[in-house]
Amino acid sequence: MSKGLPKRSEDYSLWYNELVKRADLAENSAVRGCMVIKPYGYSIWEKMQAQLDLMFKETGHSNAYFPLFIPKSFLSKEASHVEGFAKECAVVTHYRLKNSEDGKSVIVDPEAKLEEELIVRPTSETVIWSTYKNWIQSYRDLPLLVNQWANVVRWEMRTRLFLRTTEFLWQEGHTAHATRQEAIDETVQMLNVYAEFAETFMAVPVVKGVKSANERFAGAEDTYCIEAMMQDGKALQAGTSHFLGQNFAKAFDVKFATKEGGLEHVWGTSWGVSTRLMGALIMAHSDDNGLVLPPKLAPIQVVIIPIYKTDEEFDQIAEKAKEIIAKLKSKGISVHFDKRDTHKPGWKFAEYELKGVPLRIAMGPRDLENNTIEVARRDTLTKETVDLALIQIEDYVSEMLELIQKTIYQKAFDFRAEMTTEVNTWDEFLDLIETKGGFLSAHWDGTSETEEKIKELTKATIRCIPLDQKEESGKCILTGNPSKGRVLFARAY
Amino acid sequence: MSKGLPKRSEDYSLWYNELVKRADLAENSAVRGCMVIKPYGYSIWEKMQAQLDLMFKETGHSNAYFPLFIPKSFLSKEASHVEGFAKECAVVTHYRLKNSEDGKSVIVDPEAKLEEELIVRPTSETVIWSTYKNWIQSYRDLPLLVNQWANVVRWEMRTRLFLRTTEFLWQEGHTAHATRQEAIDETVQMLNVYAEFAETFMAVPVVKGVKSANERFAGAEDTYCIEAMMQDGKALQAGTSHFLGQNFAKAFDVKFATKEGGLEHVWGTSWGVSTRLMGALIMAHSDDNGLVLPPKLAPIQVVIIPIYKTDEEFDQIAEKAKEIIAKLKSKGISVHFDKRDTHKPGWKFAEYELKGVPLRIAMGPRDLENNTIEVARRDTLTKETVDLALIQIEDYVSEMLELIQKTIYQKAFDFRAEMTTEVNTWDEFLDLIETKGGFLSAHWDGTSETEEKIKELTKATIRCIPLDQKEESGKCILTGNPSKGRVLFARAY
Ligand SMILES: [Zn+2]
Ligand SMILES: [Zn+2]
Repeated sequence: MSKGLPKRSEDYSLWYNELVKRADLAENSAVRGCMVIKPYGYSIWEKMQAQLDLMFKETGHSNAYFPLFIPKSFLSKEASHVEGFAKECAVVTHYRLKNSEDGKSVIVDPEAKLEEELIVRPTSETVIWSTYKNWIQSYRDLPLLVNQWANVVRWEMRTRLFLRTTEFLWQEGHTAHATRQEAIDETVQMLNVYAEFAETFMAVPVVKGVKSANERFAGAEDTYCIEAMMQDGKALQAGTSHFLGQNFAKAFDVKFATKEGGLEHVWGTSWGVSTRLMGALIMAHSDDNGLVLPPKLAPIQVVIIPIYKTDEEFDQIAEKAKEIIAKLKSKGISVHFDKRDTHKPGWKFAEYELKGVPLRIAMGPRDLENNTIEVARRDTLTKETVDLALIQIEDYVSEMLELIQKTIYQKAFDFRAEMTTEVNTWDEFLDLIETKGGFLSAHWDGTSETEEKIKELTKATIRCIPLDQKEESGKCILTGNPSKGRVLFARAY
Repeated sequence: MSKGLPKRSEDYSLWYNELVKRADLAENSAVRGCMVIKPYGYSIWEKMQAQLDLMFKETGHSNAYFPLFIPKSFLSKEASHVEGFAKECAVVTHYRLKNSEDGKSVIVDPEAKLEEELIVRPTSETVIWSTYKNWIQSYRDLPLLVNQWANVVRWEMRTRLFLRTTEFLWQEGHTAHATRQEAIDETVQMLNVYAEFAETFMAVPVVKGVKSANERFAGAEDTYCIEAMMQDGKALQAGTSHFLGQNFAKAFDVKFATKEGGLEHVWGTSWGVSTRLMGALIMAHSDDNGLVLPPKLAPIQVVIIPIYKTDEEFDQIAEKAKEIIAKLKSKGISVHFDKRDTHKPGWKFAEYELKGVPLRIAMGPRDLENNTIEVARRDTLTKETVDLALIQIEDYVSEMLELIQKTIYQKAFDFRAEMTTEVNTWDEFLDLIETKGGFLSAHWDGTSETEEKIKELTKATIRCIPLDQKEESGKCILTGNPSKGRVLFARAY
């Protein structure tokens, strides 16, 4: 299976693409830029969704569903929103097909032209705020805490599976509040939810920060983000949480009667993560043998592979496996017994390595004799023989899964530490961005012009102004102008 | 809240629309024909989804995700599919907007015209079978058992919330099999899953049957369906399961190497239910006071409403409610304590009636004294005072919820029995379809011409040929030609 998977060191980009396809995560579809998420890949996404959904509900949010289509005129209601967003979208202009004259194909019915074109949602602020106008009259209607799981479309010329696709799946939270402070608190709360999810479940350490004006969401007053470091030294924005101020409330005229009898515009937030997280998960941990999944998101946490020559041997192993499976399931561990006789054990080993199953248990005739199993960890590729008389298998496995979860996180954390460099001169910046990559922590004079210039010269952007930025006076890496603290630069996905 | 909800007997259609809006289930959006599913409505849909998803997985299916867009040419590959389907769709012709010359709005960029138009999926057989071509080579790849949760778009001129909307949410299963029989078995299995879900969870009795050729899915050899009876005597198709034969395999050239070394086209099925089920759920059980929800799908199963004058009374009631809540939660019962002081008890009673909460518990000062509670059932609108010393509250409530679930089902079952009439003459048919409605069980000569004629004359269609149809020779209700069994006619949603 993994035969011929390209090496990361030789062609990282090709390694990624091949891994995504061969591990049955996703593939390109017949529609340019749109992917098919395959069952195995989708089962990982489902685990992500379930956990995030739980965390959204624990913080008081409800799900709802808003239309796929947005009337074209909505996009120009919030001035900066249209500037930053409305350009590369799928536009619906007609609502009917008809048979061609030769009867062999279908053509667009020219008589079924829409009066106003509809845009397939690239994000839903406009259609949702137009709805909120009807839902919000009084302070009693606030806060309004709503999330939507949906597909969105942004027309992309250059696409990569999960990382940048024309259609992708995501969730978008849209909340409305009575005060500025409450909306800011919500924005930060959801950023923290994302960070906790990334670190605790995906085992991906993230930097929490605020975007510079250049990278801010179109229509937001502030965009908060979490940024992760990939194995090739490039950064990946894994989630964003926007403080919208009163911008959309003003654009869609959403006011509420205050407790004191006044009438004020509502304060808003929006926040989202997408199937892009799948790309981050894959790139953060995987190796030249294939996927490495953190146990908390692995659809199969443990695979048991029997090694046998005769039917009798198989039966004995299956018997023993059955006991182990029952014990593991009692602890909520997902386990798969691969009894296929169409494939050899070695082939199966490689397949589950490719698919990133955290723990592999092999059982052969000698193991039966000795009451042992062979346990192999996917993350470290190490094996050990375990004497079943000396352990409780369910405790052993669940501790091992916890250990793997921690080890994967620590490895990514150490890698990021190694890949984060404080840079104080422009020469050093130019050199490191080419040779080492990673996060370059450097002073910046705070202007968009400088940021753009640096991007032009190096392809590096300001990933964020970290929330834990230290006050430190310094000189801008490019202009030498005064700066009050370091920001993180990187090339990014 | 429910003040002014129209009566079913006066205007059933208006009653339905108002109920959907006032119970916070859904509303019309700014986009013609597209609905907004509001948080309360969506939480019911989520419960439906969770249960169906479990049942799909228990029968061996995995979820995946396929593109929203379908290249126009795909629609004409399966001849009967395009005949029956491809006409009323949203057509994407452009992929970019640009600012208008005055800078005040956006216009479609005429230079960004797609070479081939894309259709927003009305259903995904074509795009999925074009993918299956790559996934299926050998008998080892079969069966392929995949489901997708997705939004779909069918341009509708006359829409009704949940029942017929331009965009709706659904699941579509798409499976591929090595043999005709296996595919038929899958089709029937999924019909049975739908029927079990409708009856056990929605408390809606359904007739399982096969569609006549006229009502068959475009591209199917056979369409199986479940049909439910609404309170106004109209039928509602609640789910369909299609045996596709080799039609899509042939259209997209999907072949597999058999065990015996041959090469054959694959056999297919597809099956789906949609947010239309919400409409069925609402219309089957609700009354003039509002929604009636079966406990198994109610987001809130029990609401506790305190009745008090002083803060001290409230505190004592809250204390007692806390104990009850803990006990109910230990049994997995979802319970909400409405402690709002902005609304009077009577207002809350009406609100939870409107929203269909199955059981209401009220507690006042006298209840505290007597160690009692007042329990009101939503379905029967009956109340009783319960002495807490004589019961285990958690057992009492969970038995009561089971009883309500059964009672609602039985009521719907009896109603349907009453609304199913064996009809033997055309005059009787004409009379009953106008006066009583419901299912008319009648003989039919098996021809499409007769079916169409009956539809023209009465607006009644053949809902299905029941799977449990008895062999009985008779004469067609319209033509008098010979028939071997009765079929079910009705006017339908
Ligand atoms: Zn305004
Ligand atoms: Zn063929």
